Amino acid sequence: MISRLIKKIQETNAPVCVGLDPNLSFVPEHIKKEAFEKFGETPEGAGEAILNFNKGIVDATYDLIPAVKPQIAMYEQFGIPGLKAFKDTVDYCHEKGLLVIGDIKRGDIGNTSASYAKAHIGEIEIGSGRFSPFNEDFCTVNPYLGSDGVQPFTDVCNENDRGIFVLVKTSNKSSGELQDLNASGKTIYETVAEYVEKWGQTSMDGDYSNIGAVVGATYPEMGQELRKIMPHAYILVPGYGAQGGKAEDLKGFFNKDGLGAIVNSSRGIIAAYTKEPYSDRFGAENFADAAREAVKDMVRDINGNL
Amino acid sequence: MISRLIKKIQETNAPVCVGLDPNLSFVPEHIKKEAFEKFGETPEGAGEAILNFNKGIVDATYDLIPAVKPQIAMYEQFGIPGLKAFKDTVDYCHEKGLLVIGDIKRGDIGNTSASYAKAHIGEIEIGSGRFSPFNEDFCTVNPYLGSDGVQPFTDVCNENDRGIFVLVKTSNKSSGELQDLNASGKTIYETVAEYVEKWGQTSMDGDYSNIGAVVGATYPEMGQELRKIMPHAYILVPGYGAQGGKAEDLKGFFNKDGLGAIVNSSRGIIAAYTKEPYSDRFGAENFADAAREAVKDMVRDINGNL
Repeated sequence: MISRLIKKIQETNAPVCVGLDPNLSFVPEHIKKEAFEKFGETPEGAGEAILNFNKGIVDATYDLIPAVKPQIAMYEQFGIPGLKAFKDTVDYCHEKGLLVIGDIKRGDIGNTSASYAKAHIGEIEIGSGRFSPFNEDFCTVNPYLGSDGVQPFTDVCNENDRGIFVLVKTSNKSSGELQDLNASGKTIYETVAEYVEKWGQTSMDGDYSNIGAVVGATYPEMGQELRKIMPHAYILVPGYGAQGGKAEDLKGFFNKDGLGAIVNSSRGIIAAYTKEPYSDRFGAENFADAAREAVKDMVRDINGNL
Repeated sequence: MISRLIKKIQETNAPVCVGLDPNLSFVPEHIKKEAFEKFGETPEGAGEAILNFNKGIVDATYDLIPAVKPQIAMYEQFGIPGLKAFKDTVDYCHEKGLLVIGDIKRGDIGNTSASYAKAHIGEIEIGSGRFSPFNEDFCTVNPYLGSDGVQPFTDVCNENDRGIFVLVKTSNKSSGELQDLNASGKTIYETVAEYVEKWGQTSMDGDYSNIGAVVGATYPEMGQELRKIMPHAYILVPGYGAQGGKAEDLKGFFNKDGLGAIVNSSRGIIAAYTKEPYSDRFGAENFADAAREAVKDMVRDINGNL
């Protein structure tokens, strides 16, 4: 699967993905109004609103980018109708040829992790039938439970040609409380990175592995160090833009081949119409055009700094 | 909320919860047959089967126990219909007066964790409406992202009188790979335990806090040690029975007041009818009666060792 992502990154010349994290406050009033008129101010109405918002963003950006990263919490917060909007978003992105990274941060003990893996990147058997409930191409995985919590995901990657990104060093302020602790000369995030490289050896796909890592743009020095520990892991980099990560800090996340990282922006793209410099030129009616401009600017910004 | 759980534990004299983790292989053929005749061998059929199975278990055990712990992965694996069965299970358990611990192991950066917290133990605003999408009483939380990933859950606990159990030392074999690493004289699980006790101070409810911990029955010595580090945290103890944890090992998880821990069993109860000594006396038709016997035996086993 990672070779498909790399091919799409090369075709678009855009090592970026758009975070489809449709907080209801980002959704323009006219979209909410239409959805609420149809379904009321209900979870169904919210699901309809975020799906239509996503479709607008995807229609305006799909030719510029290789992948999207929907954050499932933003859908799960609306219960069943929200999760239906998540699934419909995944399907819509696939119709448009985009790869989908499900940002689900799941992780549990063995057989439970296997259920999550089947739900999101694999297949589940029901009697004689086989189903792919959410059908993402990649998903993110939390490593706190250790190898036997991650192994079921790597197994499913191999069975179904999919990929995962394991949380190594997250972009948030408190991430260091556990991740930076130093045990016998190695930080926790370095230890996880070594596991990622090791697990990755069992799922190679060309020069890179289907087992990647999440490292926040907000920690560029650690990114540079982690790049070396995990030479075969693709790094999914959140935290660019709204969270404070800058393009000039991203170089160290990439390998010398110009590959090895994909940078995510969520609010910076999907809510561009609410912020300078886009808010002056694009109103809420043109939120999707603003997102397209913001993607172009992001790609230029990142490529200009590589 | 923790005081409600304690009251129910005292009323039932049963410091246990039943793990509603309805792997389809545990569901008796006659229940699957009926569900598949109605909905086909589909996710809808699977959802119907696991919901009806759960209702049977709950009907047979609700007067003996304070709480249930549905593992959401076992529902999520069937996609939207599975998650609908999860929600219907939560509602059904509430109708029967049971408290519900949603074993969801979520955790993310701040605003994303807030969405998970609202979805599972809080309320979400949609226009002028307020909804509780999944409406569990407690949920489990993964601490890998640090304080700002957990704080939104504790905030929601305080706003809605709910509780959480933070993963400290999990029951699986590989849990030590990260959790047992020693940084400056303290293991990672000890560090998390100190955070749990600290976070817990902001959400006290009587002698105990709404912020509890998960510590596996499979690590009794660590349980004893962690009991001391977190005197105010209730400990949710998975791993009893099928995973190998024994009643004689559980004493150290409890405080001197006889409180402080709730022991979970999943397969050992819900699939009791498939195993000795129950399989001889109860066939698949009487799976619920077998579960009732297994609960009684579990309570006797645990109380006899305290």
